[in-house]
Amino acid sequence: MTDTTASTESAESSVISAADAAKSKTPAVILTGDRPTGPLHLGHFVGSLRSRVEYQHQYKQYIMLADSQALTDNMDDTNKVHRNVVEVALDYLAVGIDPAKSTILIQSQIPELAELTFYYLNMVTVARLERNPTVKAEIVLRGFERDIPAGFLTYPASQAADISAFKASIVPVGEDQIPMIEQTNEIVRRFNRLAGKDVLVECKALVPEIGRLPGIDGKAKMSKSLGNTINLGASADEITAAVKKVYTDPLHLRVQDPGHLEGNVAFIYLDAFDPDKAALEEMKAHYVRGGLGDSIVKKRLEAVLQEMLGPIRARREEFAKDKGYVMQLLKDGTMRAREVAAQTADEVKAALGLSYF
Amino acid sequence: MTDTTASTESAESSVISAADAAKSKTPAVILTGDRPTGPLHLGHFVGSLRSRVEYQHQYKQYIMLADSQALTDNMDDTNKVHRNVVEVALDYLAVGIDPAKSTILIQSQIPELAELTFYYLNMVTVARLERNPTVKAEIVLRGFERDIPAGFLTYPASQAADISAFKASIVPVGEDQIPMIEQTNEIVRRFNRLAGKDVLVECKALVPEIGRLPGIDGKAKMSKSLGNTINLGASADEITAAVKKVYTDPLHLRVQDPGHLEGNVAFIYLDAFDPDKAALEEMKAHYVRGGLGDSIVKKRLEAVLQEMLGPIRARREEFAKDKGYVMQLLKDGTMRAREVAAQTADEVKAALGLSYF
Repeated sequence: MTDTTASTESAESSVISAADAAKSKTPAVILTGDRPTGPLHLGHFVGSLRSRVEYQHQYKQYIMLADSQALTDNMDDTNKVHRNVVEVALDYLAVGIDPAKSTILIQSQIPELAELTFYYLNMVTVARLERNPTVKAEIVLRGFERDIPAGFLTYPASQAADISAFKASIVPVGEDQIPMIEQTNEIVRRFNRLAGKDVLVECKALVPEIGRLPGIDGKAKMSKSLGNTINLGASADEITAAVKKVYTDPLHLRVQDPGHLEGNVAFIYLDAFDPDKAALEEMKAHYVRGGLGDSIVKKRLEAVLQEMLGPIRARREEFAKDKGYVMQLLKDGTMRAREVAAQTADEVKAALGLSYF
Repeated sequence: MTDTTASTESAESSVISAADAAKSKTPAVILTGDRPTGPLHLGHFVGSLRSRVEYQHQYKQYIMLADSQALTDNMDDTNKVHRNVVEVALDYLAVGIDPAKSTILIQSQIPELAELTFYYLNMVTVARLERNPTVKAEIVLRGFERDIPAGFLTYPASQAADISAFKASIVPVGEDQIPMIEQTNEIVRRFNRLAGKDVLVECKALVPEIGRLPGIDGKAKMSKSLGNTINLGASADEITAAVKKVYTDPLHLRVQDPGHLEGNVAFIYLDAFDPDKAALEEMKAHYVRGGLGDSIVKKRLEAVLQEMLGPIRARREEFAKDKGYVMQLLKDGTMRAREVAAQTADEVKAALGLSYF
């Protein structure tokens, strides 16, 4: 009983609402990021990128290209990870993440993150890692079964290192990642207790209020592996082709029939992206009572997406002309981030008695 | 069947004799070291320190003060580890390890060792770590049971990092540590296969021909926790007191009785340390046929130990007068070692596609 209560309390206290997060007096530190395993798409845009463009004005924001973490299940294709670092960075810059306001960093280029991971491994038991619901779910998802790479089982310690290195107090994550945040806080508390002072900072999960964007085929998740994405860098023709394939209402056979909005991806996308909410509400009403064809709805969707993605694509292409410059931005961000991580690693090592010179 | 054969072959090929090791054409690289958890004693001297003084002329020798590794089961007493780094270094210098010939390094001050550990964790499965006989035995020994710190389960990856960082090809270890060497070689081979070239070097265990030195109480192992040691820095009085307690032959009640040599610690120590082998053989014969009292044997043992440990203690006291100088030696060694480890880490990361700038 005691255990259950403790766990529930801990789960609650590990989450913060966007409103509460915005209220913090001193600018909070936020850590976000992506595993660079493929181009970013509309799902990322809705789920995180769009928010990051706002966060960079409210918080001290670190955005991590988690290449080392991506290796935990991509050791057979390390090239893919390498290649996508600059591609994902281009997506960041294209959507308006400003490297002067946000610190973009490459995880593998900050050895102190591996160092912190190393020490945190002493602060978590094997049994605890095996009980982590996120790890359990991902082990099934990735089909590891008994052949779990040790680096996969231990990645909560790595995530704790990433978060605590920058003393991030807010971490935007999906609901399924809350156990990871709890595990980080357990390590942070254990370490601070050991150190006898608050060297590390506890963090809160900031769960986005908008749910996941479905794929163009109507499946619950937009995902590269499902082939149902619209990438942020999609060409005008690719957008046109994708919109044609967008899943609508299979019961809406004739124009004059009443249409359904539930699970209708065209309307879900319009809800997410159409800036003209009044016209959209009118269109929805028309669709529901019958007499509005899918082709009209899709025409509007295409216009909205072309208008939204056009400037993103243009900025992406502009930055892509000089990848050397983009890599320089990443280097600058990484060096800035490294100073912070190195300072934390020094504090952690000093608390463990590992300072000599 | 196939599995058993493979494992036997692998065990054999992971070991090298001192004679074969000495034959290598280019100077081989050797890695040794200690967990700094207490002062070194005669057991260390016989088991490893004495050899290291010779190795430093034959090999490129790295000697690691494994403070990070010591933390895996000393998180409750980090101070002990910190304190013993300089003490163990004093023991090294006292026995004649020459910092100009051997590179003495502090593990925690080389972040690249943690970095390599981090990547190697992707190259070994949890199941494989759990099957490691050395790890299994130590989990029982240390009473971890289900609450195994993750850092303890994963320490074979850390050991692989330490060995491979310096491209050591020879690692002096006890018989019980051979599975660790095999695990290192598995990681090395897996990594090289992935890299498509021999970035890392396989190593061989060099198992000392002289067995373990028993404690003064006759127990199989001399160990601080058993309180049956003679420390290298022992004072003359401490040596006298210890020799008095040395276990001999419980059946040798009267001087005229025949004595037994088996398990007789006084003679085991004399075998290990008395330079006058002829006189020793005579004394043994006398003891066995009867008429030689334990007090005479112990008198000889005390003389031998005082003579051997006197200069060691004097050198230790001399170095201990200027611990700042000792720390400077450790810093120099660590910096030299770090350059080598950083080079290896760069090569490893480049092979994993983690080079950008």
